[in-house]
Amino acid sequence: MSSIPWQDKPEGSQDIVWRYSENPIIKRDAILSSNSVFNSAVVPYKDGYAGVFRCDNKAVQMNIFAGFSNDGINWKINENPIDFKAGDVEQVLGDYKYDPRVVFIEDRYWITWCEGHNGPTIGIGYTFNFEEFFQCESAFLPFNRNGVLFPKKINGKYAMMSRPSDNGHTPFGDIYMSYSPDMKYWGEHRHMMSPTAFKDSAWQCTKVGAGSVPFLTNEGWLMFYHGVINTCNGFRYAMGSAILDEENPHIVKFRTQPYLLTPSVPYEQIGDVPNVIFPCASLQDIKADKVTVFYGAADTVVALAFGYISEILEFTKNNSI
Amino acid sequence: MSSIPWQDKPEGSQDIVWRYSENPIIKRDAILSSNSVFNSAVVPYKDGYAGVFRCDNKAVQMNIFAGFSNDGINWKINENPIDFKAGDVEQVLGDYKYDPRVVFIEDRYWITWCEGHNGPTIGIGYTFNFEEFFQCESAFLPFNRNGVLFPKKINGKYAMMSRPSDNGHTPFGDIYMSYSPDMKYWGEHRHMMSPTAFKDSAWQCTKVGAGSVPFLTNEGWLMFYHGVINTCNGFRYAMGSAILDEENPHIVKFRTQPYLLTPSVPYEQIGDVPNVIFPCASLQDIKADKVTVFYGAADTVVALAFGYISEILEFTKNNSI
Amino acid sequence: MSSIPWQDKPEGSQDIVWRYSENPIIKRDAILSSNSVFNSAVVPYKDGYAGVFRCDNKAVQMNIFAGFSNDGINWKINENPIDFKAGDVEQVLGDYKYDPRVVFIEDRYWITWCEGHNGPTIGIGYTFNFEEFFQCESAFLPFNRNGVLFPKKINGKYAMMSRPSDNGHTPFGDIYMSYSPDMKYWGEHRHMMSPTAFKDSAWQCTKVGAGSVPFLTNEGWLMFYHGVINTCNGFRYAMGSAILDEENPHIVKFRTQPYLLTPSVPYEQIGDVPNVIFPCASLQDIKADKVTVFYGAADTVVALAFGYISEILEFTKNNSI
Amino acid sequence: MSSIPWQDKPEGSQDIVWRYSENPIIKRDAILSSNSVFNSAVVPYKDGYAGVFRCDNKAVQMNIFAGFSNDGINWKINENPIDFKAGDVEQVLGDYKYDPRVVFIEDRYWITWCEGHNGPTIGIGYTFNFEEFFQCESAFLPFNRNGVLFPKKINGKYAMMSRPSDNGHTPFGDIYMSYSPDMKYWGEHRHMMSPTAFKDSAWQCTKVGAGSVPFLTNEGWLMFYHGVINTCNGFRYAMGSAILDEENPHIVKFRTQPYLLTPSVPYEQIGDVPNVIFPCASLQDIKADKVTVFYGAADTVVALAFGYISEILEFTKNNSI
Amino acid sequence: MSSIPWQDKPEGSQDIVWRYSENPIIKRDAILSSNSVFNSAVVPYKDGYAGVFRCDNKAVQMNIFAGFSNDGINWKINENPIDFKAGDVEQVLGDYKYDPRVVFIEDRYWITWCEGHNGPTIGIGYTFNFEEFFQCESAFLPFNRNGVLFPKKINGKYAMMSRPSDNGHTPFGDIYMSYSPDMKYWGEHRHMMSPTAFKDSAWQCTKVGAGSVPFLTNEGWLMFYHGVINTCNGFRYAMGSAILDEENPHIVKFRTQPYLLTPSVPYEQIGDVPNVIFPCASLQDIKADKVTVFYGAADTVVALAFGYISEILEFTKNNSI
Amino acid sequence: MSSIPWQDKPEGSQDIVWRYSENPIIKRDAILSSNSVFNSAVVPYKDGYAGVFRCDNKAVQMNIFAGFSNDGINWKINENPIDFKAGDVEQVLGDYKYDPRVVFIEDRYWITWCEGHNGPTIGIGYTFNFEEFFQCESAFLPFNRNGVLFPKKINGKYAMMSRPSDNGHTPFGDIYMSYSPDMKYWGEHRHMMSPTAFKDSAWQCTKVGAGSVPFLTNEGWLMFYHGVINTCNGFRYAMGSAILDEENPHIVKFRTQPYLLTPSVPYEQIGDVPNVIFPCASLQDIKADKVTVFYGAADTVVALAFGYISEILEFTKNNSI
Repeated sequence: MSSIPWQDKPEGSQDIVWRYSENPIIKRDAILSSNSVFNSAVVPYKDGYAGVFRCDNKAVQMNIFAGFSNDGINWKINENPIDFKAGDVEQVLGDYKYDPRVVFIEDRYWITWCEGHNGPTIGIGYTFNFEEFFQCESAFLPFNRNGVLFPKKINGKYAMMSRPSDNGHTPFGDIYMSYSPDMKYWGEHRHMMSPTAFKDSAWQCTKVGAGSVPFLTNEGWLMFYHGVINTCNGFRYAMGSAILDEENPHIVKFRTQPYLLTPSVPYEQIGDVPNVIFPCASLQDIKADKVTVFYGAADTVVALAFGYISEILEFTKNNSI
Repeated sequence: MSSIPWQDKPEGSQDIVWRYSENPIIKRDAILSSNSVFNSAVVPYKDGYAGVFRCDNKAVQMNIFAGFSNDGINWKINENPIDFKAGDVEQVLGDYKYDPRVVFIEDRYWITWCEGHNGPTIGIGYTFNFEEFFQCESAFLPFNRNGVLFPKKINGKYAMMSRPSDNGHTPFGDIYMSYSPDMKYWGEHRHMMSPTAFKDSAWQCTKVGAGSVPFLTNEGWLMFYHGVINTCNGFRYAMGSAILDEENPHIVKFRTQPYLLTPSVPYEQIGDVPNVIFPCASLQDIKADKVTVFYGAADTVVALAFGYISEILEFTKNNSI
Repeated sequence: MSSIPWQDKPEGSQDIVWRYSENPIIKRDAILSSNSVFNSAVVPYKDGYAGVFRCDNKAVQMNIFAGFSNDGINWKINENPIDFKAGDVEQVLGDYKYDPRVVFIEDRYWITWCEGHNGPTIGIGYTFNFEEFFQCESAFLPFNRNGVLFPKKINGKYAMMSRPSDNGHTPFGDIYMSYSPDMKYWGEHRHMMSPTAFKDSAWQCTKVGAGSVPFLTNEGWLMFYHGVINTCNGFRYAMGSAILDEENPHIVKFRTQPYLLTPSVPYEQIGDVPNVIFPCASLQDIKADKVTVFYGAADTVVALAFGYISEILEFTKNNSI
Repeated sequence: MSSIPWQDKPEGSQDIVWRYSENPIIKRDAILSSNSVFNSAVVPYKDGYAGVFRCDNKAVQMNIFAGFSNDGINWKINENPIDFKAGDVEQVLGDYKYDPRVVFIEDRYWITWCEGHNGPTIGIGYTFNFEEFFQCESAFLPFNRNGVLFPKKINGKYAMMSRPSDNGHTPFGDIYMSYSPDMKYWGEHRHMMSPTAFKDSAWQCTKVGAGSVPFLTNEGWLMFYHGVINTCNGFRYAMGSAILDEENPHIVKFRTQPYLLTPSVPYEQIGDVPNVIFPCASLQDIKADKVTVFYGAADTVVALAFGYISEILEFTKNNSI
Repeated sequence: MSSIPWQDKPEGSQDIVWRYSENPIIKRDAILSSNSVFNSAVVPYKDGYAGVFRCDNKAVQMNIFAGFSNDGINWKINENPIDFKAGDVEQVLGDYKYDPRVVFIEDRYWITWCEGHNGPTIGIGYTFNFEEFFQCESAFLPFNRNGVLFPKKINGKYAMMSRPSDNGHTPFGDIYMSYSPDMKYWGEHRHMMSPTAFKDSAWQCTKVGAGSVPFLTNEGWLMFYHGVINTCNGFRYAMGSAILDEENPHIVKFRTQPYLLTPSVPYEQIGDVPNVIFPCASLQDIKADKVTVFYGAADTVVALAFGYISEILEFTKNNSI
Repeated sequence: MSSIPWQDKPEGSQDIVWRYSENPIIKRDAILSSNSVFNSAVVPYKDGYAGVFRCDNKAVQMNIFAGFSNDGINWKINENPIDFKAGDVEQVLGDYKYDPRVVFIEDRYWITWCEGHNGPTIGIGYTFNFEEFFQCESAFLPFNRNGVLFPKKINGKYAMMSRPSDNGHTPFGDIYMSYSPDMKYWGEHRHMMSPTAFKDSAWQCTKVGAGSVPFLTNEGWLMFYHGVINTCNGFRYAMGSAILDEENPHIVKFRTQPYLLTPSVPYEQIGDVPNVIFPCASLQDIKADKVTVFYGAADTVVALAFGYISEILEFTKNNSI
């Protein structure tokens, strides 16, 4: 793996997480057919990186596309969406696919996304090489969004966070954990994280959803998530972090009362859906104490943010709600 | 088992399903603490019948109670709610329990109900004797209602219908089938049945939900379900029937375009929630060609309706949408 | 024509309009297939009466049916809905038909109703003999309901009242007049009557709609209309009267601040939609000073009410808003 | 004062509060102009009783009327509404008046009601003799309903409960206490009582409002209040009791988790607004341990219920939430 | 006529329709009183162009104004709104006027717009010289918007597209065609075009409305229309094209699944209503194969876009839904 | 006092009120912990100015902070929120504080703000020196916002404007005046100002709220207020002015039909809540005929606007609705 995309903290900055100066790294017309490219996921792959990208086409149909990069910043996204073959079942063809996450577990790359099946639910697929993809049984009954797998089994079982939803813009939302022995049947549903009271932390008072795939630190699993406030001019999405118990990751040890990142630069404030920051992946170099977050901005483009892992852990513990 | 509760079709009646002349069989004050008793389930047990009853108390808290009867008509309901012990997990204490169904599979009586767990989902429990009860992992993530199990495994797996919902009065609703190898982990979710177009069959155009436990006939599984229309004065619930494929019961072969029963007598039209007919169980005598439906009326009382199985099958096939 | 259905005012009654003691005159199961029969219209025909009836079937599909009566009270309704032939156009097949009105103009009986055509609009048809029916172009674009024709041309043109609506339960509604030279093209739209302010006359503060076909009196056209209030338990429909200018009937000279009839007997308070009184037709004997109103009750049955024309005119003038 | 209206508890009844067998005591047409008479208040007056009654007229305009009774059961209500003179201000003429309460303090009878003034707020007036009435400044800014005064000053100030509302059907509602040195300027607003969590006591989970004027017992002030649940067929109103601290009555010591009375007889379940019980006054004979509650039923009529004070206190303490 | 406003396609662009580099051509303060100028219509007139402009004043009152230009880019708009004289009727004074379209038919310029008359409906007027204007009967009953006439009679009748609406922000909307023999009475209403399913073409899944006046090509009538998607931050308006049958233009032969133009530059993304592209007129030079679209941007300014007619026809046919 | 912040009207401008060229004067990160600083109030203090600022922190919790400036443009805001001591009562600790106003009356600086107390209401406090602050009883029952005091007693009583609200985003809102003899008990509530009809002045048709503290001119009290329109993309806030009667300031003599300022530059159009101008204070130099308005922009920053008092008075009188 090449070193992760990185830029040092700007001189004098007091921020825990800071933006890449050349944001956005992927523009709305990154491929010929795209209206927008955002809410996308990446993983280290071979000497560089591979990713799964949400590209809405110019009919604003949502689908997911594979892409590749040497440095994690400059990406080549395939012009055609991923063509899934049947995995553990006869192929289930969804109405649409969006908001992918990717994680390597044991021997393959697992992909989860929001799958249209009489309403949104969590689609599951895998690949060994980002060329051939296999679609499996969807994880849950509708309506659900933001399914995020853990990068290793927990107590012998696959573990997935998700957010039960309704079939519209969903003015509520808690994160739950579910477990599975085989990636096919799911159960042991545990409530993990609720929106906060308005007076306690307003940026996450309407709903919350898992964002990036958690990674293990000496404090537990570190995850970036999104929180939403419902203003008189619509939803505003910001980003926080949470530390989950290593053994029982549905136990939230700490989560940030302040956001780490809120829409405040033009590519986050202006676009198809103004005022959205939506993290879907992170790359980390544990030894170097660095983490790079990939997030969708304004439902239109992909951007990067950086932080020192130790600072984020410290901040999360010291500013927990 | 004693013969099922029964009353012959009234002379001259053209109805496929008709009401018991002494309805309601269980009144709102059936037990000392009850505000209302409705949406309840029964099964043959020993020489008579056992049941699980939704009794809302006078604080309008919802819970489920065991009860017993010799004839299926006169019931003795326990004064205290069912006290579940831990089944396959440490005890999960729900916020509330309502709308139970009961079914015997292999060696025990399984109970499903609507379980309060940060919103409604499907609770699962079992008993061998209606005295000692065990609660298991809930089947799905919230929000869900109307979980109904099949009385035998399908292709080696437990099969359950349910209706994904939101956390309010839910102005939409389709029935799905899910499968489980072990009553703990659930997957293979299949869409079964949608509300109809208003112009095709208005009584079931807002939402539908599984009602009684299906039973096998020579045409396939026969089930009674509820359908809802949203009038300018609120929801109205009526009852229809569906025939499901024997091997793949998520395939609906026929379902009634007309209702079989709609609120039209005082105990269905007046009560805590006017204009509700809500079937939760049936008893059948296949040889005698008789079926007796137990339904909640106006969210206040329990009532009975009768039909000849062959007539219902014929009607469902000939009047299918 | 036989004398109109009639019952004298009960001794001691101070009511301007009173109910028939044998109400409802048509029950919900008046024909074999019907779930309910209501909101229906009648006219004198030959030696007796003919009518067009809204019969919702047991799939709660809405359609209109012809019927006949010698005395206006006992009705024989056809078992099959009206089968329209093409009138001035190739046949326009609607999704549904409901809430008919009937009126004789010049040489034929014109029928208007709520026609399903990508939402509700005003269907128009005619018959010479209540056996053969012809459907014409719909009058307006969707969404519209309660189209009521005047019984003669006004200044050489057909005149129709209607109530622009939305495609749901419509929480607003004013009556407009429109004119047509040929029953095909409509224009000269005039605003007629709005809901009242809550504090002025609450029973008609949410919406109003034309009811019966107006008839000419020495004070102008007399019409019965419905008004709606939106309570915390849904819409309640009551009935008032209005006097329209003879020459320019879109000018409302008087309309009742008090209702004439509000739901207060069981068949109006209980049914498929509780608390509805919905007038659709009247029969009058001008010389005898008598008028008989046909109204739907609780969206379930048809009922009658009576009044002396002179008393109603006097009351409308003296209690006008 | 004559003895209060009374009927002993029916043999075998386990109820804490029971209905009068001849309910409703005041029917919807109690006066010539009335559509309905409900939500009304009474006090002992001279040798009998006086009251202020909500009579909606046949235009469904809301106003309040004086009435008199010898026995508290048979009432003579004035045919004309109360004609207020200017009290401490130039006369403030409201758009409408409804839901009165009456209480004697020091030297006069104070009346509070819901006053229309660009939306509902709390009107205040007084009388010495139920013949001449004076209207004062309204207590609060809109939007407010259910203003109920205490029968004596608390720490030298007038004390009033009320429920801040919105200008529609208000799907929320807490009871607050406010104080005034002079019945003109109000402050020291204290939160008193919230709706309960759905799972704790569902009948009062949507909103609560003060009902009858509190009276002093050896446990503190005893008050009957209404609680509301929002069903899929609209709001249902039931009645509970609360015990308030004698010195600081904004402190709720106990309140009933179960209701005392819920709509379950026809005159409560059927009417202009089905399923409403709305207490507005009580008469008590402390020595005889008796209390009689006056409540509006179905927004249509007035009814009575009875109880033993000591039993109600005991029940409230033992079943408090 | 001068040659139409034009700019060649930018080198290397793959767009079918491209923006004018000097957009917006009319700014929000184009006249002294204006808050914004947008959603406006133009036609060739004498040696140059004339137009009717929506200028909201600084009280945000909506009215329409005449304007003139030599080149179609630089406009001189009158400081006073159009002062209509009575056309075929006594003058009907509307509450407001907005979103005009203009078309020359036979001997005069017809103007249609959204006319306030107890809610929005379609106003009609004409002029021979853009100095004297005449207002006619409104075309339809409320509620309606986006009335667009065809530039010649179809089968001897005037033809108008419109979109039935409600009286608010209208979360639905289909295009209908209506016909008139005389521009006064309208009928023969035909359904033309619905919103698409979300999964098929999301940018037009909430509502659609006619935009520019159609013009005849060798494939049929070509029209630009707007489509709307309802995001969690409000409505987003984009532009597509449709080809209508020459003889029966209510038959839509093709319509673009992808949009042609979506808000993606600052003057479309930022303004009084962010993210709006709203086409109201086009100028075409058939021989030169060029078309220029006039569209409102962000409900604040007027902008231009260009395309080759043959390319647009080809694209519409090849990417039709 | 130093001279007020000022910039002359730009050459050629026809505006009555114009923006400061260096806006915004306070940025979102003005203090270390702030997410945004907006909707804030200032007064002359000693040789310069003091103010109370709404700073939402990075958990988007709302609180108010003191600050100081020599020139009214460059501000030093305290890093810690105001720590109120108990004023006339035991300290009432609110859930949150926002949107402050400040005014000097007699001997001290009074502060009003939106106080969280089971929903928003009007908090009151005072200070003599902007170092020590005292919190008093809240003025009203919830729900209320935008409480603005007059700078001197009116007829011997304190006078406060406010806007009764609901507990959400409040789609309605009128300004009322209330009076108090002692800043503790409030009464004599008078309706002042309603939203306008959409067709009369659309920018203020949804709700209005008091803005800056009124100051006395030779025409009466001059106040800047905000008005709101509900677009399909959310609320838009603009600013107008009103002239109130000197003796009876609840009488509105004039108010501007046009806005004085509407969001039209990037810092007003883009931010946490786009399209918001929200005036909270003004500084005036009566002799110099100058007024400077402080307003929050886009719920993110603080900005200035200027005007000549005589021009504003003239404009308000000549353009009154």
